[in-house]
Amino acid sequence: MSLNGFDVSIPLSKERFKVAYHLRGTKEEAQTLANEICIEQTIEFPPDLVTKGDIRDHIFGRLESLEPVCGDSWEAVISYAIETVGMELTQLLNVIFGNSSLKPWIRVERLEFSQSILNIFKGPRFGIQGLRKLLDVPRRPLFCTAIKPMGLPVKDLEELAYRFALGGVDMIKDDHGLADQPFHPYKERVERCAQAVLKANAQTGGKCLYIPNLSCSTDQIVEKAYFAKEKGAGALMIAPGLTGFDTMKMIAEDDKLGLPVICHPALLGSFVSSHGSGMSHRVVFGQLPRIAGADATIYPNYGGRFSFSISDCKSIVLGTTEPMNPIKPIFSMPGGGMSFERIPEMIETYGKDMIFLIGGALHKIGPDLTENCKKYLDAIR
Amino acid sequence: MSLNGFDVSIPLSKERFKVAYHLRGTKEEAQTLANEICIEQTIEFPPDLVTKGDIRDHIFGRLESLEPVCGDSWEAVISYAIETVGMELTQLLNVIFGNSSLKPWIRVERLEFSQSILNIFKGPRFGIQGLRKLLDVPRRPLFCTAIKPMGLPVKDLEELAYRFALGGVDMIKDDHGLADQPFHPYKERVERCAQAVLKANAQTGGKCLYIPNLSCSTDQIVEKAYFAKEKGAGALMIAPGLTGFDTMKMIAEDDKLGLPVICHPALLGSFVSSHGSGMSHRVVFGQLPRIAGADATIYPNYGGRFSFSISDCKSIVLGTTEPMNPIKPIFSMPGGGMSFERIPEMIETYGKDMIFLIGGALHKIGPDLTENCKKYLDAIR
Repeated sequence: MSLNGFDVSIPLSKERFKVAYHLRGTKEEAQTLANEICIEQTIEFPPDLVTKGDIRDHIFGRLESLEPVCGDSWEAVISYAIETVGMELTQLLNVIFGNSSLKPWIRVERLEFSQSILNIFKGPRFGIQGLRKLLDVPRRPLFCTAIKPMGLPVKDLEELAYRFALGGVDMIKDDHGLADQPFHPYKERVERCAQAVLKANAQTGGKCLYIPNLSCSTDQIVEKAYFAKEKGAGALMIAPGLTGFDTMKMIAEDDKLGLPVICHPALLGSFVSSHGSGMSHRVVFGQLPRIAGADATIYPNYGGRFSFSISDCKSIVLGTTEPMNPIKPIFSMPGGGMSFERIPEMIETYGKDMIFLIGGALHKIGPDLTENCKKYLDAIR
Repeated sequence: MSLNGFDVSIPLSKERFKVAYHLRGTKEEAQTLANEICIEQTIEFPPDLVTKGDIRDHIFGRLESLEPVCGDSWEAVISYAIETVGMELTQLLNVIFGNSSLKPWIRVERLEFSQSILNIFKGPRFGIQGLRKLLDVPRRPLFCTAIKPMGLPVKDLEELAYRFALGGVDMIKDDHGLADQPFHPYKERVERCAQAVLKANAQTGGKCLYIPNLSCSTDQIVEKAYFAKEKGAGALMIAPGLTGFDTMKMIAEDDKLGLPVICHPALLGSFVSSHGSGMSHRVVFGQLPRIAGADATIYPNYGGRFSFSISDCKSIVLGTTEPMNPIKPIFSMPGGGMSFERIPEMIETYGKDMIFLIGGALHKIGPDLTENCKKYLDAIR
């Protein structure tokens, strides 16, 4: 190229962040693949044409280590200049895995953010301690349920929310299938359910939060978030697989709004469905929701109707709690296929900093929903 | 449940749209899985508790057919009431695959939108015919290149854009690694590159479009889109894997903005990386970008440095062009690992309604970039 060489126009900080990729193949194949990632995730340009200069020395991804994992699996740790990210989560995702997601046998296993990255992204506003304080529950696991099914008239959803709140549930969320459908429009539903929960709180002295599903159109999400707050909602649920992670981050980081955000896993499953490709459970359901500002992350519990293993679930917990100062640790929120009997086992697996998400199972142990909630809460205590 | 039964509060239209899923297992296992999808994607609630009423009769997903594909693979076509979607793309994605993405052996193969869905979503503003008219290229394949690599100073990117435009390229896009980094800030880069292309157009009489990468933070995307238009950009590129599909749709459907949108595949690869799970190439790179308003969809060409097969690529073309009235057909834009020699073969594979995306290869056939562009353009003609 006959331009001005390959120096960049500003001094670079030399600070780098790291991504651990798991690669499949022989050692030689893994080495080749790792070198390709260094180019694909940065300059995406024939490297032999960039013979010298800052771009080669700093902008290229740099293979820091290549170690065997087991069998034909290798861990390549690649570092990137923090300047490649700018200040944006969209571009952070792009550098981590944008084009390489399109190649086989590459799996993002772990993110090792550098300090500048952790300082750029605010992370959760509340985190574990903040949410405990808000709910006035210092130690035990939290208890969340969902109003459903999709299609139920608003007056019934409202009634469900009221009964659950009377039963001492800490958080009541919309099922993630409740959007802005004509049979339970967002605004009518949110106002009436939020008020029902506040009414129950006034009777019980409780601090139950109603959490509407805010996985909606980008052009409506800010207005709908403020509407929810104004009507008394206590937190917001967003599925970043539907809205994009950065849209969730925008809502989480809105200081005037200031509400906790719960991350829902809808559509994110495809990232973890192939063991040799995609991203790890730890990254998708732990590290990414956390850096994108979620205070709790919902995911399918092991042994339920989904296919996550106990080690998948424990790796998510690691992603939610490993040191990422100043970004706070967040709650794990396993759900799906719960039963009364599994409570002790789950506390043993996850520890006390978890939120039980108990949906359909709450309807199955008796005819009185408020009583059922109390039974579950007693068991959790 | 002792509430008001399971009727919904409004009359339902009875119109349904369909999703074809490919499932793995024995016929019995596929049947069970299909029945689970009907519940998981809608009410996500114990179906035995919903014994009667509209919710059971209409809101439940309905298995329309289950047919063998080959070996242990089955195609289940499931229909959903259009009311489950509301009017939102986020919720459409959720009904199609939200929770079921978290289960193994389910792959979304094909979407069969009903007329109401096609009427709700505007789709591409330009499509194939509109983009051809804008560029004044009625018949031949289009020719797009990218300015890169990441890290190059703005003055060099500007110079590249100018030389490419002089060479008769139809469209010049930012490499998708160019975001808002300190070494080539979005606004400075976009203004200068847009002006460079307009200057070349004035000299050649051409209609080359400069296409900035708008895969940015949600809270900045509208402002950055308008900035680009104001400074002379001719289209916008968005990676919905980074921003969310609905954010791309918001930009595409903005009438005041009125610019073509090019869809980039960054981070979408994980949806297609497992053959038994995720979504098909046709859906991810064809049907979804199209319904979300993209006028062209970039994807890795077969035989390049990515792993898409020729049949994967042809299925994408099907998704971009199959009848979806009134939603227009859109351009296929295969890229990655191109070479001069492959042009005739690619036209034979894709037909003339395609956009050649030629990046690094353009630098390899000679020292004069403008001349290189002319050579490629001659070959395409």
